[in-house]
Amino acid sequence: MTRVVILAGGTGGAKLAQGLQTVLPAGDLTVIANTGDDVERHGLLVMPDHDAVLYMLGGRFDHERGWGIADETWAVMDGLKAYGEEGWFGLGDRDFATHIARTARIRRGETVTDSVLALQAAVGMPSRILPMTDEPVRTHVLTDQGWLEFQEYFVHRHQAPDIRDVRFEGIETARPTAAVRAALAAAELIVVGPSNPIVSLGPILALPGLADAIGAARERGVTVMTVSGIVGGRALKGPADRMLVSLGHESSATGVATLLAPHTDLFVLDTVDAAAEPAIAALGLWTHVTDTIMADDAGRARLAADLLAAAAAVANGEAR
Amino acid sequence: MTRVVILAGGTGGAKLAQGLQTVLPAGDLTVIANTGDDVERHGLLVMPDHDAVLYMLGGRFDHERGWGIADETWAVMDGLKAYGEEGWFGLGDRDFATHIARTARIRRGETVTDSVLALQAAVGMPSRILPMTDEPVRTHVLTDQGWLEFQEYFVHRHQAPDIRDVRFEGIETARPTAAVRAALAAAELIVVGPSNPIVSLGPILALPGLADAIGAARERGVTVMTVSGIVGGRALKGPADRMLVSLGHESSATGVATLLAPHTDLFVLDTVDAAAEPAIAALGLWTHVTDTIMADDAGRARLAADLLAAAAAVANGEAR
Repeated sequence: MTRVVILAGGTGGAKLAQGLQTVLPAGDLTVIANTGDDVERHGLLVMPDHDAVLYMLGGRFDHERGWGIADETWAVMDGLKAYGEEGWFGLGDRDFATHIARTARIRRGETVTDSVLALQAAVGMPSRILPMTDEPVRTHVLTDQGWLEFQEYFVHRHQAPDIRDVRFEGIETARPTAAVRAALAAAELIVVGPSNPIVSLGPILALPGLADAIGAARERGVTVMTVSGIVGGRALKGPADRMLVSLGHESSATGVATLLAPHTDLFVLDTVDAAAEPAIAALGLWTHVTDTIMADDAGRARLAADLLAAAAAVANGEAR
Repeated sequence: MTRVVILAGGTGGAKLAQGLQTVLPAGDLTVIANTGDDVERHGLLVMPDHDAVLYMLGGRFDHERGWGIADETWAVMDGLKAYGEEGWFGLGDRDFATHIARTARIRRGETVTDSVLALQAAVGMPSRILPMTDEPVRTHVLTDQGWLEFQEYFVHRHQAPDIRDVRFEGIETARPTAAVRAALAAAELIVVGPSNPIVSLGPILALPGLADAIGAARERGVTVMTVSGIVGGRALKGPADRMLVSLGHESSATGVATLLAPHTDLFVLDTVDAAAEPAIAALGLWTHVTDTIMADDAGRARLAADLLAAAAAVANGEAR
């Protein structure tokens, strides 16, 4: 059971993907990345979730800052600001290289998927990161100040406004790519990563045909394991906790489990939430309680190995 | 006589433009820049001649390297090479900011002219730099290895191949912009800068309608002053000398004067070439002999003041 597909947003899912890459044979991990956060900045296609995974799996992610590449420089951004371009969406020089190289390929006629696979191949990535779709899907959030583009809310307004509603523009006509369908069709285990269930996992699962492809995998016996990104009632990073509450859900492992139960066989919750296990099991899910905090490379590998073992136990009918 | 228009390529013309900017009232200098060297690199519009003038007039030009911005860093280029993009066309991080900001504006629907005027305004440029046209014109050169794009010859092959022919792709359908026409219509003095007469001044003068606009200015009494970029038989920078010879011209002040005589009233040659003055006068041109070497800011201002005085003398009928 080594061909693993993980659905991921930018940070939690990316960290778990890094752990899985460490413990799986090279080439066996495929990440399906949310594209709802993607944005055109300075004429370039910026893909925050894909790139967080790219930098995380390449060992380049800036864990201290929480985004982008470590040891960055900022000459391009300084130059752009001097030319009157908006500066609130910070992009480092090494990060710019990613956006320039990708956009150049797309302008030459490549699909988004082909463009990022070429970048991944160039830097020798042992895993594949697949954008969920090649068609533009853009997340917008409804706040007291009206509908905002996701990065306007997330970066420019520092996630301060309360979220009343979420929409994924373009999702009705977007489709999972052939590569995404093939990866799900070949998967031996599907992991729904500990990412924001509303705006990171939400667009992936809302993409027409994608939930059906997951359902088809489950019908042939593949386990879907969902890892809670809410621990002790809080999101480890980002606004998922407040977003869950303002949208009428519970900010808890149970809340996440309830939301994702239709797509889940095995639910993983943190030891601090162990008391929620009966309620989650009552949703008809297998459960696994473990330390889900990934403080460093070793912690990410430890959790990945632990989760693979838990999923194998379910697949072998050994789980309780 | 302070509203001056200078036709310029990348280095010699840009240096003289800087000198003119120093001695003229703010706002009175307009540079018409060659666009035949422009190129799409990494999906971005790079305009080497416009940008050399932009950096020169902004005091940012790297005189030591001979191109680009001083104190550059190279993080983006290193990143692009790691992603498999071609690396022979060097672009620094600060330089990338120019190409990104410009291309972003063009993608938002601005003309090339509007995009560069916006950048110039943002950095507080006291002069205007106008691309000769908004339509793509691309210089190609015929060598023993066939037709090459200009930057392929100029940068990648280090100007090594001999030039057998030159063509400016797109020139037939390109037109001077309204801003270029207006600048020539308002000019009190037109300077043809000491740039490569074949590939820097050639495209400007070959642009349909531009030579006529210069002719119309001359009919209303405006002097056109051409400054030789060949001194002592050699180009101060670049391959103009070898290019003149391989195309059947003379690599000398007389050669340049012969080539540009149809567009010239007053020809400026260096003191080392003083012996050529009678031959150049015999072409029907006024002549001015002076030290045309511009070693530093002071030298550029000195030459500019000297040339403005010489042009004033011609305009006032005082020249011999």
